[in-house]
Amino acid sequence: MLMQNPAPRLPNKDIQSLIQVALGEKKADLAVVHATILNVYTGELLPDLGIGVSGQWIACVGKNIDPAIGSETHVIDAAGKTVIPGLIDGHTHLAWTATAHEFLRYIMKGGTTTLVTESLEPYPVAGLAGVLDFLASLADQPIKIFALAPAMVSISPEGRRMPIQDLIHLLELDSILGLGETYWQALLQHTDLTISRLEAAVKAGKILEGHSAGAGEAKLNAYIASGITSCHEPIQPQEVLDRLRLGLHVMVREGSIRRDLKAISTLRLTGADLRRLILATDGINPQDLMQSGYMETLVQRAIDYGFEPVQAVQMATLNVAEHFRLDHILGGIAPGRFADFLIIPNIRTIRAEVVISNGKRIAADRELEVPPRRHRYADESLASIHLDHPLQADDFAIKTEIKRPIATVRAIEMTTDLVTSEAVLQIAVTEGRIHADVGSDIIKIAAVDRTRHPGKTFTGLLKGFHLQSGAFASSAAWDTTDIIVIGTNDRDMALAVNHIRSMQGGYAVVDGGGVIADLPMPVFGLIAELPLEEIALRVSRIDSVLADRGVQFPDPMLSLITLTGAAIPFLRICEQGLVSLKTGEMQNLFIS
Amino acid sequence: MLMQNPAPRLPNKDIQSLIQVALGEKKADLAVVHATILNVYTGELLPDLGIGVSGQWIACVGKNIDPAIGSETHVIDAAGKTVIPGLIDGHTHLAWTATAHEFLRYIMKGGTTTLVTESLEPYPVAGLAGVLDFLASLADQPIKIFALAPAMVSISPEGRRMPIQDLIHLLELDSILGLGETYWQALLQHTDLTISRLEAAVKAGKILEGHSAGAGEAKLNAYIASGITSCHEPIQPQEVLDRLRLGLHVMVREGSIRRDLKAISTLRLTGADLRRLILATDGINPQDLMQSGYMETLVQRAIDYGFEPVQAVQMATLNVAEHFRLDHILGGIAPGRFADFLIIPNIRTIRAEVVISNGKRIAADRELEVPPRRHRYADESLASIHLDHPLQADDFAIKTEIKRPIATVRAIEMTTDLVTSEAVLQIAVTEGRIHADVGSDIIKIAAVDRTRHPGKTFTGLLKGFHLQSGAFASSAAWDTTDIIVIGTNDRDMALAVNHIRSMQGGYAVVDGGGVIADLPMPVFGLIAELPLEEIALRVSRIDSVLADRGVQFPDPMLSLITLTGAAIPFLRICEQGLVSLKTGEMQNLFIS
Repeated sequence: MLMQNPAPRLPNKDIQSLIQVALGEKKADLAVVHATILNVYTGELLPDLGIGVSGQWIACVGKNIDPAIGSETHVIDAAGKTVIPGLIDGHTHLAWTATAHEFLRYIMKGGTTTLVTESLEPYPVAGLAGVLDFLASLADQPIKIFALAPAMVSISPEGRRMPIQDLIHLLELDSILGLGETYWQALLQHTDLTISRLEAAVKAGKILEGHSAGAGEAKLNAYIASGITSCHEPIQPQEVLDRLRLGLHVMVREGSIRRDLKAISTLRLTGADLRRLILATDGINPQDLMQSGYMETLVQRAIDYGFEPVQAVQMATLNVAEHFRLDHILGGIAPGRFADFLIIPNIRTIRAEVVISNGKRIAADRELEVPPRRHRYADESLASIHLDHPLQADDFAIKTEIKRPIATVRAIEMTTDLVTSEAVLQIAVTEGRIHADVGSDIIKIAAVDRTRHPGKTFTGLLKGFHLQSGAFASSAAWDTTDIIVIGTNDRDMALAVNHIRSMQGGYAVVDGGGVIADLPMPVFGLIAELPLEEIALRVSRIDSVLADRGVQFPDPMLSLITLTGAAIPFLRICEQGLVSLKTGEMQNLFIS
Repeated sequence: MLMQNPAPRLPNKDIQSLIQVALGEKKADLAVVHATILNVYTGELLPDLGIGVSGQWIACVGKNIDPAIGSETHVIDAAGKTVIPGLIDGHTHLAWTATAHEFLRYIMKGGTTTLVTESLEPYPVAGLAGVLDFLASLADQPIKIFALAPAMVSISPEGRRMPIQDLIHLLELDSILGLGETYWQALLQHTDLTISRLEAAVKAGKILEGHSAGAGEAKLNAYIASGITSCHEPIQPQEVLDRLRLGLHVMVREGSIRRDLKAISTLRLTGADLRRLILATDGINPQDLMQSGYMETLVQRAIDYGFEPVQAVQMATLNVAEHFRLDHILGGIAPGRFADFLIIPNIRTIRAEVVISNGKRIAADRELEVPPRRHRYADESLASIHLDHPLQADDFAIKTEIKRPIATVRAIEMTTDLVTSEAVLQIAVTEGRIHADVGSDIIKIAAVDRTRHPGKTFTGLLKGFHLQSGAFASSAAWDTTDIIVIGTNDRDMALAVNHIRSMQGGYAVVDGGGVIADLPMPVFGLIAELPLEEIALRVSRIDSVLADRGVQFPDPMLSLITLTGAAIPFLRICEQGLVSLKTGEMQNLFIS
C-alpha cells in the first residue's frame, strides 16, 4: 500500500549548478536586486532582497546575493517594487474556443506562469489520440501547463465510455496531475465505473479533482470519503466552509462561467484558517480574457473585496501548489523552485511590470517578449465531425403514435441562463407529429451524435430560451459527443448542423435558410484556429444576432452548450434522449 | 520529467463501504457522538459533531451521523469532551536503545498514532538486510510507523559506503517516505555522492529530509536548492524564520537530544504564517518517555509556552501530514482519512482519555487496550559485533616515532556535553608512547570498527569529559560502524570493548578490571530487548556510576555516542582517525 504522495523526478534540474550559484562559485543567469519580496511561506513582505536564477530555477534568495552576480548576469533592479510568485490557475479549461497559443498571448503578460487544465472535452470526440494531441499543444510553452485526465462523466452512456487503458495511459504522463473533475453524481449513480477510475488514478499516484455542487452533508461525506480532494463549485461562504472543514481544497471560481469571489470574500471575516482556499477561473472566454485579464485580475479583486493582499496572493500561488503537490518546485520564491515571478508596483496593485517564467523574461509592461508556441494539430484532430451525409429537416421531426389531438410532453425549461428544470406541456399533435410553438416560447432542441454513432439524433422541446426565429447550433456540447442544436424550425436546424459539418466544428446561427453568424472551430470541433481578437468579433456577432432574435442570456453560447452537461441541474439532453440529473436516468419525451 | 508528488495507492481502502456508511446505507463499526472536534483544516473548534468509522477509515463527520449508527456500532459519547486528530511525530529515531515494541507501549497510550523514523543506524552495521529487519519490526503495529531511507552521511569513508542499489531498493518500499536526514555538510563536502542519492530519492518519487544546523545564508540556499524540504535543527526563532522563508518545513525539536520549543515559542508573536512549523522529538530515550510522555507532552508544552491550542495541535497533525504528502489520509478528522483521533478533556489539556488508531480503540485512561506487536529479529541482526577475538590493552596504545620528550597533539575537547572543539596539547612521550593524563582531564578515546574492517582501531585523546577512573564504551556510535570507547587506562578500555563483544552490543562501564554497569543491546548492537523499565534502571545505574567517577553531563551515554557523529561540530573520531567537520577532512593526531 503506497500511502504517500511521492515527490518529483527532475532529471533536468542541474543541482550542481544551483549549488554553485548559491555559493557564488558560479554566476547567475538572471538576478533581481533590491526587491521587496512577498514570502508566501511566512506571509511576510521582506524588503531589499535579491534573487539569483540559474537556468529555469531559483538558486538563492537573500540579503547578499552579490557573489552570484557576474558580468554576464542579467540584473533587474527592483528598488521600490514588489516581487510576487508567478500566479497559478488551478482549474481551467483550455479546450475551449481558442487555441492555447491564443489564450497564452493574453494570459502570459498578466503574470500567470502555471495553468492546470481539464482535458475532458477532446476525449469523447477525438479519443486518446485527441487528448494526446491536445496535451502536445500545451507542452513546451513559455509557461507551464499541466492537465487532468478526463473522468468522462456524462449523461450519455456513450459519453461515459472510456477503456480503462486509455485512462491509465494518460495517468502515467508526467504532465497529468490527476483525474479531472468527477461530479459527485457520477460517484453515486455510476459507482463501480467511477470507483474504477478513481482507483486507477490513485494507483498511478495522482490526485482526484472534485466537483461537489449542491451535495448535502451525507453526500458530501460520501464523496470525500472516496478520495476526492478538491471542489471549485461552492458559490456561498457557508458552502466553502463546509468543504474546507471536510478536508477539501476549495477553489473559488471567478471566470466566464461564474463569478463567486465577491460573495465568498466574507469568509475572511470568520477567522478560519484559509490555507486551503484557492482562486481559479474554471475557464475564461476570449472576450473576458481580452477585457478583464486573467489570474492577476482575480488576485486584484480578492484584495479589492477585502482579503489581505498577502492572503490573496497565497490563494493563487502557494495554496494551489500545495494542493497539487507541486509546492517543492512551484508557488513561492525560494531556492530550488522554478524561477517564476512578477514585478509589480506594490502589493496592493497586481499589475505585472515584468514577468519571469522558467527563468526567462517573457513579458514586460503588458507586452510579450517571448511568443507562445503555435501547435500544428494532427489531421485527425481537425476532422472530428463524422457525419457521412448532410441532415435533412425531417431528421428533426418529432413523431408520435398518439392519436389524441393533445399530447402531454416533458420539455427542458430554462430556469436561469444555465439551470434547467422539467416542464410538462400540453402540445398539439398534427399528423402524428408535434412542433415548436414559438408564440409560447417552445422551440425544438436536438442532440446529434457526431462521433460514436454519427447522425444518431434525439429531438425534444425547449422552453424559455426566447429564440424567436432560426436555429443555433454548436459542436462544443458539454460532456457528450454531440452537436447541440435548437431552433424554431426544422429546416434551419438542419442547415445549422450541416454548416457545422462543413466547418468541421464550431457555432452557427441560421435564419431563413441562410447562415447569419458563425465561428469555425475545426480543432476537435471545439477550438477555433483564429486569432483571439477575430474570435471575439465573431462571438460578439453571434451574441448580437441572437439578441436580435430575442435571446437575452448573458452568454447564449454557454447557455446552449451546457444543455448536454452533466453538472448543472436538472433536465438535460443527449443523442439518446432526455436525462434527469437527479437520478441519472433517461426520461421519456411523451408522458401520455 | 515527473514534477508532481503523486498520490497514494490504497488498494485496501474499501471506498464502496465508506460511501455506504456516509449515506447511512450501511452501519459504522465505530461512532463518536456529541464531540467538540478540532478542525485542523479551518482551525475551528466545532461543537456537537459525530464521527462515523468504517474499518480503518473515517466515513463521515457531521451534525447528523445517526443514519450511520446501527445496533452493532460501537458508540462513544464524547459529550463535554474534545476530539483532536491522532498526533504525529515527524522525526524520530526508533533504532535507539529500546525495541519499537517497548517504545510503543508508552507512545501509544498518549495519543501518538503515526511516527516517522530514521533508519540510518542499522544500515552501516547490518546493511540492507538489517534495515529490512528493522522495518519489519515497525510493520503491522497498532499505530502507523513510516521510515526514511538512510542517507549514510558519515565522517568515515566506510560509513558513507552504500551501493546505490541498496538505496533504490529501500526507496521503492511503500513504508519509506523519503531520503533521511542528509546533513548539509555532506552535500557541500561530498557533492557527487550526495547528489546521486538525492536524485535516486527524487526518481523514486520521495521527499528529501534535511539537517541544516548552523548553515549560513549562502550554504542554506545551496542546500535547499538541491531539493531538501525540511530541517529539524533550528534552536532559535530567527533560525526557524530563516528556514521557513526559504520554503522549508521546520520541525521544532523537543526530545532527549535537545529541547528547543521554549526558545522558539516566541515565534508566535511575529504574526508569521506558521503552517510549515512542526513539532518533533528527534528521538526520545526510555527515561524521558516514561517520565514525560511523548507527542502529547510536546503539544501541551507548546500551549503552555503560549501557542494557541489550535495552532499547537496543527503543528503535530496537519502540518506534519502536509509535509510528508500524507494529508489526504492523515492529520485531520475528515472523511477518507485514517480513523486516528483522541478524546481529551478540553483543548487546553492534551491528555488522551481514549485513543483510536486505524479505527480501533487502542488505549483508554493511559492503559493500553491493544498491545504492540513483538518482533522476532533475524539471527543476523542479533550478531552484529564482528570482532574475531578479544582486544588487548595494547591495542589502545598510542605510539609515536617522535623522539622529543614532549609532543604536540590534537585532542577532542568537550565544549559542551555534545559540541566538541580541537584542543592542541603538549603531551609527554614515554618510550615511544603517549598516555592519558587524568589529572589534566585528558583521557583516551578510541573507535573500533565492528563491521567492515572488524578490529580496525584508532586511538586519540579526549579532554573535558571528566571521567576520572575506568572506561566507558558503546556500540551505538553515531554515523559509523564503530564501537566508541573512552578510558583512563588501556586495560579497562579493552575490557569494556570485550564486554560489548560478549553482549553482542550495548553499553559498558568498566573500572578496576571489572564491569560495574552495562546495558546489553544485541539488536544491531543498537537496541536492547529488555522491557523499557529495565532499560531505564540500567541507564540510571550507568549514569550513576559515571557520576561517581566525575562525569557531570546530563546524558553521558549521548555524550559518548555522538563523538563519532557527523552532525555536531567540530572535531570527531572514527576508526580511521580524527575528522574535522568544518572540512570533512582527516586530521593528524600528532601535530609535531
